[in-house]
Amino acid sequence: MSDVQTVRIVPLGGLGEIGLNMMVVEAADDLLVIDAGLMFPDEEMFGIDHVIPDMNYLLAHREKIRAVLLTHGHEDHTGALPYLLREMKVPVYGTRLSLGLAAEKLKEANLLADADLKAVRPRDRLRFGPFEVEFLQVCHSIPDGVALAIGTPAGMIVHTGDFKFDQSPVDVQLTDYRRLAELGDGGVLALLSDSTNAGRDGFTPSEAVVGRAFDAIFREAQGRVIVACFASNIHRVQQIFDAAAALGKRVAVCGKSMMANTRIAAELGRLRIPDDALVSLDELERLPVGRRVIVTTGSQGEPLSAIARMAAAEHKQVQVSPGDTVVFSARVIPGNEKSIARTINGLYRQGARVITEETSQVHVSGHASREELKLMLNLIRPTFFVPIHGEYRHLRLHAQIAREVGVSEARTLVIEDGDILEFDGPDARIVGKAPVGRIFVDGKGIGDVGDAVIRDRQRLAQEGVVAVVLAVDRHCRKLVTEPQIVCSGFVHAQDSKALTDGLKTLVASVLESASEEDRADLRVIEQRIKTAVKRQLQKEIERRPMILSVIVEV
Amino acid sequence: MSDVQTVRIVPLGGLGEIGLNMMVVEAADDLLVIDAGLMFPDEEMFGIDHVIPDMNYLLAHREKIRAVLLTHGHEDHTGALPYLLREMKVPVYGTRLSLGLAAEKLKEANLLADADLKAVRPRDRLRFGPFEVEFLQVCHSIPDGVALAIGTPAGMIVHTGDFKFDQSPVDVQLTDYRRLAELGDGGVLALLSDSTNAGRDGFTPSEAVVGRAFDAIFREAQGRVIVACFASNIHRVQQIFDAAAALGKRVAVCGKSMMANTRIAAELGRLRIPDDALVSLDELERLPVGRRVIVTTGSQGEPLSAIARMAAAEHKQVQVSPGDTVVFSARVIPGNEKSIARTINGLYRQGARVITEETSQVHVSGHASREELKLMLNLIRPTFFVPIHGEYRHLRLHAQIAREVGVSEARTLVIEDGDILEFDGPDARIVGKAPVGRIFVDGKGIGDVGDAVIRDRQRLAQEGVVAVVLAVDRHCRKLVTEPQIVCSGFVHAQDSKALTDGLKTLVASVLESASEEDRADLRVIEQRIKTAVKRQLQKEIERRPMILSVIVEV
Repeated sequence: MSDVQTVRIVPLGGLGEIGLNMMVVEAADDLLVIDAGLMFPDEEMFGIDHVIPDMNYLLAHREKIRAVLLTHGHEDHTGALPYLLREMKVPVYGTRLSLGLAAEKLKEANLLADADLKAVRPRDRLRFGPFEVEFLQVCHSIPDGVALAIGTPAGMIVHTGDFKFDQSPVDVQLTDYRRLAELGDGGVLALLSDSTNAGRDGFTPSEAVVGRAFDAIFREAQGRVIVACFASNIHRVQQIFDAAAALGKRVAVCGKSMMANTRIAAELGRLRIPDDALVSLDELERLPVGRRVIVTTGSQGEPLSAIARMAAAEHKQVQVSPGDTVVFSARVIPGNEKSIARTINGLYRQGARVITEETSQVHVSGHASREELKLMLNLIRPTFFVPIHGEYRHLRLHAQIAREVGVSEARTLVIEDGDILEFDGPDARIVGKAPVGRIFVDGKGIGDVGDAVIRDRQRLAQEGVVAVVLAVDRHCRKLVTEPQIVCSGFVHAQDSKALTDGLKTLVASVLESASEEDRADLRVIEQRIKTAVKRQLQKEIERRPMILSVIVEV
Repeated sequence: MSDVQTVRIVPLGGLGEIGLNMMVVEAADDLLVIDAGLMFPDEEMFGIDHVIPDMNYLLAHREKIRAVLLTHGHEDHTGALPYLLREMKVPVYGTRLSLGLAAEKLKEANLLADADLKAVRPRDRLRFGPFEVEFLQVCHSIPDGVALAIGTPAGMIVHTGDFKFDQSPVDVQLTDYRRLAELGDGGVLALLSDSTNAGRDGFTPSEAVVGRAFDAIFREAQGRVIVACFASNIHRVQQIFDAAAALGKRVAVCGKSMMANTRIAAELGRLRIPDDALVSLDELERLPVGRRVIVTTGSQGEPLSAIARMAAAEHKQVQVSPGDTVVFSARVIPGNEKSIARTINGLYRQGARVITEETSQVHVSGHASREELKLMLNLIRPTFFVPIHGEYRHLRLHAQIAREVGVSEARTLVIEDGDILEFDGPDARIVGKAPVGRIFVDGKGIGDVGDAVIRDRQRLAQEGVVAVVLAVDRHCRKLVTEPQIVCSGFVHAQDSKALTDGLKTLVASVLESASEEDRADLRVIEQRIKTAVKRQLQKEIERRPMILSVIVEV
């Protein structure tokens, strides 16, 4: 970039998927990183713990990086931070709750001592080389969320983070309408705005409606009330405490992440626990059932969560019983329907009443719906609009919305991960492609499981594995003993005897019929055995397990 | 059953899950089977094609079976028929469309020639020993659905099948209110009623609203319109033809099952194709784009469906392009969100506009919601009420609904698969447990893949497989050559060298350190190697692949 008036944005994740959010804003010699998020694996990414963005672009430009800026404390915006900070030393800026939650993860990764975390407050302005960054309060499903107004050599760029326009937020911290409008009046080069709910009509309801639903449910409940929600949804936890306290009920917090997050939020003044409302689970269980409220995780039916263990009657301290009310205060994340259904069925079996968002307003989204997205566009009135945070369909739908409020197609730039978008005065164009991708984290391994390994796992999952082992003489390469067949995930052991006997005969004959020349290369024989076994199983039982073929020379 | 006045119902599937519907009604010497349905596997049932009910109860009472009665033609009510008819010869009664669709499946299984299929019409009454069965028309998402009114020695039993009270059905065939009310007046011993939508408030909208949505979408579309729906949803296909014909558009039917079902339904007079409306795909593609409508399957994003291939730009005849409108006219079945999202993203990438039930009323349910369930209860006013067709939570919610309209808890019997419920004059009680279960069908195998095999597949899916092969001398049982390690779905090959070298050393040392006594039993050594390898991998990279250990004696 020779011209100092140009600026580039480079999405490294989050433009083409939900999660994995990471965006670069780059001038000639300086670079800012907005968010460093992970993505939760989908059900086809077998065995993957989570997914992080490819950071090779950052590694290639490491000397230019001035800061990582966090928009809020959700893991899809902060969860890749440990991986980034393991590779490079760079200061991290965020509001206090965002940093508090990130610090917890850095502590687990033994990276906290070396981390340079710098707390900011809304309306703070900070200079990083040619950039001036202002943090602007926005409402979201976690407190302390911010948008970023980034003054650059080419003009003002506004990045909304994740946001909604809640008219009655639980913490009374409105989205900063005035500053957004002022920025709009001053002229904004580019608006980068959250597309997650671009498919949803109207306005997203206020988080306050959930509080009203809690009030009614808690009031009606004769027995214990158990509420499952995300540990990071501090607004939700606040409303549970408030509804309980108003009725003289007590609340126990259950589950590791829920306990950690409520502790951090309370310490930072982001969760106000009413006097005497909080008790331990042991203390709670000594109170009359009508005064007991439990807040916990497990809203997605995670098998090891407290709520799933309660549903399976395997929780050590809490036995769900008739009269109990269980509230699932979260949306159903696609892919989790079956595990949630299993949990709900288990709770019903034990006599509980179960309330979900299907029948009661016990959950609202944290993202802006179509009318709010229009409001953001109308406040900012940008020269260029770039939809961010969503799958391709969400980005396209958001582009349609922009057209409805008068942003022309030419000024709407639907870009995807890796597209290097350069703003140069009145022009904007894609000038290149950065390396991007989804890096799989599995146990201690980062990136050692790739697409080929996942494809093998998918194959193994479908039909299991059949290992064929032959011992051959190292000189004549004839069988020295009977072939062995070992299976897993294939068929019941009692059903496999006839099948494996047939395979033994088959592989012996493959070896025998091979010419001396072929036998010279055992890889050729192994491949031929694989093919023969595959064909035989397809014919006999119409299955295609993974075949492993091992020839031992003795 | 000594007393001829008693009658039993025995659910063999569908009371505790969605699908797998099969119910026995049994008197002293006679037995009727209602439906023989399959269940589609959930994502954790790796490699399973579909699931059928355990039929051992039927096999044990085969001489008593008088008939199989089909309530309608959906696979979750008819799909296990080939497996049943392979085991026993028994006549199958159903309406014409139900039999027509079942016949297609029996033909594929080479069972049609021997099948005894007997067509019935609504209000037909048939006697089977002590039972008199009347077939009563009900609305559902497929034409020709019926409820069953079964006169038994103990009293009248009404089985609703799957139903809704559509006030403006596409085929103008209303649910038979009058007969249901008459039966109610005459006294009904037990109502067995569909619980699928017991969690949904109000009334299910009429199928006609989808037709109105099609009208608007078809009218607005400048380009080609492609509608994806279930092949069995003949009402939906009818409305696509009607909307197209009204605007002078033509329709091509695409996809094997869609072509088969429309052909069968048209032959039986259940689908009325307007003159000239139907054309081949080749003919269609020669018309102006504004006159082209395609109806196809793939509403769940099935990877091999026509719509998924169009989305991936891999369809031979249809290239989706800007201006095209694609309508997903089906609900999102839990577990299919990701594949549907992938398809929609692909269609957007090619410039299509995509319409789903999220933003337009292009789908309605075929099952009764809460107010309709109340209406059914109020029409029938049964002595006993048994909720059927649903997961446990749906059955419980339906029981709550019954209480709201005055059916006491004592007369509401929430039973599950296998419960043998006996009606004996004024009493009803569970008198035993029939063998039940979910039998997995995988390729040609029926039941040879059980829970243990599935658990192995889940393990393989998570972490892959590591096979350890040792060749030992048959006398001294010492290694005769270096151990071999073969992996699949584990880590990238380039990352595994150091790891497998370490494992080779490890397993060699396990063998060496074993006492002579231990070596006598190679199973002991194999087990010890598995444990050592497992521990090592857990320590080194925190993974737990399936370990196969094979020792070859030479």
